[in-house]
Amino acid sequence: MRRNQGLAVATTAALAAMLLFGGTSMSEAQDGGRRIDARTVPVPAAASQALRESIAAPVPVPVSADGGGLPETDDEWAAFAAAADAAAGQGVDAAAEQLGLTLERGEVEGVAVHRVTPNEVDPAHADHLFLYVHGGGYVFGGGDASVQEALFIASRARIPVLSIDYRMPPAHPFPAAVEDVVTVYRHVLAQRPARSLALGGTSAGGGLTLAAVHRFLALGLDVPGALYAGTPWADLTKTSDTLFTNEAVDRVLLTYDGLLRAAAELYADGHDLKDPLLSPVYGDFAGFPPTYLVTGTRDMLLSDTARTHRKLRAAGAVADLNVYEGVSHADYLLVPESPESQEVYAELNAFLLRHLE
Amino acid sequence: MRRNQGLAVATTAALAAMLLFGGTSMSEAQDGGRRIDARTVPVPAAASQALRESIAAPVPVPVSADGGGLPETDDEWAAFAAAADAAAGQGVDAAAEQLGLTLERGEVEGVAVHRVTPNEVDPAHADHLFLYVHGGGYVFGGGDASVQEALFIASRARIPVLSIDYRMPPAHPFPAAVEDVVTVYRHVLAQRPARSLALGGTSAGGGLTLAAVHRFLALGLDVPGALYAGTPWADLTKTSDTLFTNEAVDRVLLTYDGLLRAAAELYADGHDLKDPLLSPVYGDFAGFPPTYLVTGTRDMLLSDTARTHRKLRAAGAVADLNVYEGVSHADYLLVPESPESQEVYAELNAFLLRHLE
Repeated sequence: MRRNQGLAVATTAALAAMLLFGGTSMSEAQDGGRRIDARTVPVPAAASQALRESIAAPVPVPVSADGGGLPETDDEWAAFAAAADAAAGQGVDAAAEQLGLTLERGEVEGVAVHRVTPNEVDPAHADHLFLYVHGGGYVFGGGDASVQEALFIASRARIPVLSIDYRMPPAHPFPAAVEDVVTVYRHVLAQRPARSLALGGTSAGGGLTLAAVHRFLALGLDVPGALYAGTPWADLTKTSDTLFTNEAVDRVLLTYDGLLRAAAELYADGHDLKDPLLSPVYGDFAGFPPTYLVTGTRDMLLSDTARTHRKLRAAGAVADLNVYEGVSHADYLLVPESPESQEVYAELNAFLLRHLE
Repeated sequence: MRRNQGLAVATTAALAAMLLFGGTSMSEAQDGGRRIDARTVPVPAAASQALRESIAAPVPVPVSADGGGLPETDDEWAAFAAAADAAAGQGVDAAAEQLGLTLERGEVEGVAVHRVTPNEVDPAHADHLFLYVHGGGYVFGGGDASVQEALFIASRARIPVLSIDYRMPPAHPFPAAVEDVVTVYRHVLAQRPARSLALGGTSAGGGLTLAAVHRFLALGLDVPGALYAGTPWADLTKTSDTLFTNEAVDRVLLTYDGLLRAAAELYADGHDLKDPLLSPVYGDFAGFPPTYLVTGTRDMLLSDTARTHRKLRAAGAVADLNVYEGVSHADYLLVPESPESQEVYAELNAFLLRHLE
């Protein structure tokens, strides 16, 4: 900065406040926090009809996100996750068949996987492979439940998917999940060029994707050709702005102070939550491959996604941020027939076609 | 979509809800709206120190954004805007000199302009020109006040800037502002290749930029090489989701139901607010040039910016969305020494260097 720029900037800043509809207001709460009155937030008028209908008539689910009735012991956690995953994993074979996919269960060097292969692979993806990492807060989404989004990706992009059913707590806390992704990635890397591989997922799957790439770089492995970070849980601590501003506005996550905090602590198993392999936003993003990011205006992880995008850009990476109107955390999974969901995966596919080799 | 995909998708959607921390909650308010309790939103922990300090100790300014004391007659509006602009326009010559810029007042075919020329133009920008369109809700920001952000752009990117001091209401409502941008653009286009020109601004300036390009396309004019849409006011109606979700969270705009609504109505002068030349998000974005967009997690115009980004992408345009942590509407102007502000203009410059010819 030039020597006198500070003064000039200070002058213009004080004046600029008056240009913008009257400028800033006094803050009312202590410590500079802003006191926000109770309000009713209407269904987003500019969202699609399908999303609007889902938001206006939400499906009640049995688990309370505010922490009421949360498991406490390891056995309770295991039973809780097993029941949720059993329900979520039902019907995946029929779904795969109806979507024109072949679904096979297997393992790679001891790590459970599902192979999801379109009956008609896009010729442009003939030499590509998508390594999928499921979400579920590092606690849920194992077994057959792990392939839900993999089915969307495989059927919409017509790309082969290898879905990683990584180990989870309480039996296998951090760093088991990261290790399993590394194991599968190393195995695939021995067979294919790194630039032909994509890696990605949603929520915890997005965060784990970013954490795994930090680990790949530390190990000196070539990075994939492209990443997909769908509303990534990139910071397990209660830091991001939208954890506060979108609390209760986000119809999926609702609040950090329940299942999210409990899941973070169960997964971390005593490790520092700011370890970049747990909260990848705190890592060094130099060397990251092109990354496609998705979030929404109501997403409590909008900040995690935007902060990751900024870190990637500051490190010189290609990073493509997409924010959808009225979309809460991972709504594109919950309302898969919505135009928003179609657009998320169409853009993902375009990104893969642009960056994979 | 394949014939049976609907069923498969419905099955997986119902199950996917259980994967994400317990899924959706029941909505409490009527019409599907969400009732949000009062809360205190803390200063964003992951924003820069400079931005945090500004948020924690906001500068009170004399105008109330909630509509209290707003002008009513044309004479009151004129006096109100003149006083605000006189204050905001003070000291721009000294500021320009301190920033290493030459500031000249002039006109182009009857439209008032300022020419802002860096003493040391970046050789890469030697053949480029940035046409700047100021903000201020289509009511404020005229005269010397119009060059504040132009000074930042010219000094940080070391690019010559032609700042358009377009006519405004009450004397000159819509479409005077659009016409003035077209007049200056046509004039410049007769002298230079379109691809050597950038066009852009913040807030109303971002919206006017997008509206003007709709008009360029309708007139069959070549479009500029790049656009800058800083938190564009792209929808003058009360439609966007973040007008509701970020009400009062945004320390700059505070609410739509005061100065914003009044300014929109004064500017529109009875025209349909959804006319794409007033609310450009409702237009057809086919043929738009590469566009760089900036907003923040607390910005009430986050939705306007994100919706514009999606429209651009759906139309096949290159569009680059950037969301800054904890940033309210145009905070990068209000806290210009913050790292966020430096990054906004560094990214703008990189975008210009990539796309201008």
